[in-house]
Amino acid sequence: MTLTTDFGLRDGYVAAMKGVVLGLCPNVVLVDVTHEIPPQDVRRGAFILGAAARRFPPGTIHLGVVDPGVGTERRGMVLVSGGHVYVGPDNGLFTFAAVEDARAVRIDPTPSASATFHGRDLFAPTAARIAAGVDPLTLGPLIEEPVRLPDWEKTRERGRVIGRILHVDRFGNCVTNIETADFPIHPDRFEVPGRAVPRDLPIGRTYGDAAAGCALWLVGSDGFYELAIREGDAAASFDVRVGDAVAGVVDREGA
Amino acid sequence: MTLTTDFGLRDGYVAAMKGVVLGLCPNVVLVDVTHEIPPQDVRRGAFILGAAARRFPPGTIHLGVVDPGVGTERRGMVLVSGGHVYVGPDNGLFTFAAVEDARAVRIDPTPSASATFHGRDLFAPTAARIAAGVDPLTLGPLIEEPVRLPDWEKTRERGRVIGRILHVDRFGNCVTNIETADFPIHPDRFEVPGRAVPRDLPIGRTYGDAAAGCALWLVGSDGFYELAIREGDAAASFDVRVGDAVAGVVDREGA
Amino acid sequence: MTLTTDFGLRDGYVAAMKGVVLGLCPNVVLVDVTHEIPPQDVRRGAFILGAAARRFPPGTIHLGVVDPGVGTERRGMVLVSGGHVYVGPDNGLFTFAAVEDARAVRIDPTPSASATFHGRDLFAPTAARIAAGVDPLTLGPLIEEPVRLPDWEKTRERGRVIGRILHVDRFGNCVTNIETADFPIHPDRFEVPGRAVPRDLPIGRTYGDAAAGCALWLVGSDGFYELAIREGDAAASFDVRVGDAVAGVVDREGA
Repeated sequence: MTLTTDFGLRDGYVAAMKGVVLGLCPNVVLVDVTHEIPPQDVRRGAFILGAAARRFPPGTIHLGVVDPGVGTERRGMVLVSGGHVYVGPDNGLFTFAAVEDARAVRIDPTPSASATFHGRDLFAPTAARIAAGVDPLTLGPLIEEPVRLPDWEKTRERGRVIGRILHVDRFGNCVTNIETADFPIHPDRFEVPGRAVPRDLPIGRTYGDAAAGCALWLVGSDGFYELAIREGDAAASFDVRVGDAVAGVVDREGA
Repeated sequence: MTLTTDFGLRDGYVAAMKGVVLGLCPNVVLVDVTHEIPPQDVRRGAFILGAAARRFPPGTIHLGVVDPGVGTERRGMVLVSGGHVYVGPDNGLFTFAAVEDARAVRIDPTPSASATFHGRDLFAPTAARIAAGVDPLTLGPLIEEPVRLPDWEKTRERGRVIGRILHVDRFGNCVTNIETADFPIHPDRFEVPGRAVPRDLPIGRTYGDAAAGCALWLVGSDGFYELAIREGDAAASFDVRVGDAVAGVVDREGA
Repeated sequence: MTLTTDFGLRDGYVAAMKGVVLGLCPNVVLVDVTHEIPPQDVRRGAFILGAAARRFPPGTIHLGVVDPGVGTERRGMVLVSGGHVYVGPDNGLFTFAAVEDARAVRIDPTPSASATFHGRDLFAPTAARIAAGVDPLTLGPLIEEPVRLPDWEKTRERGRVIGRILHVDRFGNCVTNIETADFPIHPDRFEVPGRAVPRDLPIGRTYGDAAAGCALWLVGSDGFYELAIREGDAAASFDVRVGDAVAGVVDREGA
């Protein structure tokens, strides 16, 4: 079972959830994805959880709690998708995890649940029950359309694909939502309008393809183009932020 | 077994403790409560450990090391309380974990222990031995009166209960030591003298009872009244700090 | 199995590695040493990993990824040393873990590995295979001379041993590479040329040998002399940094 939250590690909230899970299912293996999602940043939680979850074996249960709407009308959800099970709020947090055949059911807190901490009082016990063998799709009524984050759609023009910066990681690498499959041939260059990113940066295969301190574009480990500085911080150096528009450009004929 | 320390996660101190435990008891399940207690902040450690520990199943061993007095005359301790076992310094760290029937014994370092890292050389091996089946109360002489943190007593006047801010969490929520049971009827308002907290804030049930960016009081997930801003940071906005006095007020007749 | 990286805990990189390991070897126990090595700081990674690893039982596999040269000609390596197994880049990260009888083999990424994340695509699956029983020294050709960090050699003059600050920990304690065995008798004092460290500080046994707020030298928990302030931050107070020269001095006759 994995855990992804915006609770941080300074407080005991994550441990309280783990205590509840282990009390109901003592043999489960618990793996933290991260608890450093910025408070209430559902989009970032969705990106990190989606990218990490696919590395776990089928049958893994992913407990995700980035939940600004706790205690309101937002629904609790169990989502079964691609052989994995996701438990958390129905607020878009599982957008990048849900595949086409995904099915979801609604779960509701018991009367004794706190109104402010469904992670501990609803989602953790539900995940533990699934880990102990309960069929997740029997836990509540079907949800027809789980909430999805508004897509950051890519647009295509003649010779260019326009996407966005999805994520800036700890190293300052700026990950886009543009993939190799978006181009018929290798792109020639990338542009980040309004930011200080040089237009003529090389497109490499690995960080080592640039000299130390030099910038390049490359295909990152999850298959997306990213902007990096070898042994440096591209986001800080070029003032690039999540949400910025990015264009991949093919200059050659026929593209 | 849980671990709570002020060691942080940048150094290898926590891992050294885990290595010692796993060397003596390879099958124990280790769960971090937090290692981000501010250095030597025994009060905060006591609050976080006490709140998290109660969510774990009976029989759990809680290893706590916030230990400014390491190497001095302060005693090492094993405390058995409410079906849980606590191992660490006898400096008040287990104040909020100790219930009425608690019993404690003193433990001493062996001659080979370092004078600066009892977490690794005394508390971790002791916890591992208990996890392996040793009766905790046979490990040393009885401690008659474990050290307790000075209480932040609540005082009651006509129509008001005066307590303190116990804890500010990652979200900026300001948790008091005032509970619903402190009032005969629902309180009408809360005051934080000397801070910029408006007097007429609503008292809600969940963060969602305020509009985004708006403040309210509510009963938090551990049963204490807390000050919060929905999708905001109440501590920063109102300059509220741990230790501040807080008054819960009932204006109505008969209170 | 332990993990030491510079990936931080904000992203999902560490979890992706764990997912790969658990997919190949579901029963392994995973322990984080730290993921807060400053980006690409191989020296610090080597120090923390070396100090923590020795606390784990023989047979432990240590996965270390601080890897500025990922995707370049630097080799991947499995090192068997002192009954432990180390898996990661051959860039000096295991300098402090390697003992005299250490033997190492080279490992190479498969064609499907990403060029930017060997932690997930090469080192994690290799470590999992070893955990599942594969003999580590059969995994590739022998490496004759694993890369070692340039030594911070200690020099000895009449009555003094000159070393360096190896590490500053979370508490601001400044750990040197000078040990008790470096002196024929107890040293009389320590000097940190060019820094604001008073020359007449006492040499104690534990932090408690100084009054609160007062500085002292002592032998830390890993056997090295360190500079500390009781309940304070020595590095910040005296502007001491990793790499600073330190001299331990014996004034007495015959030293």
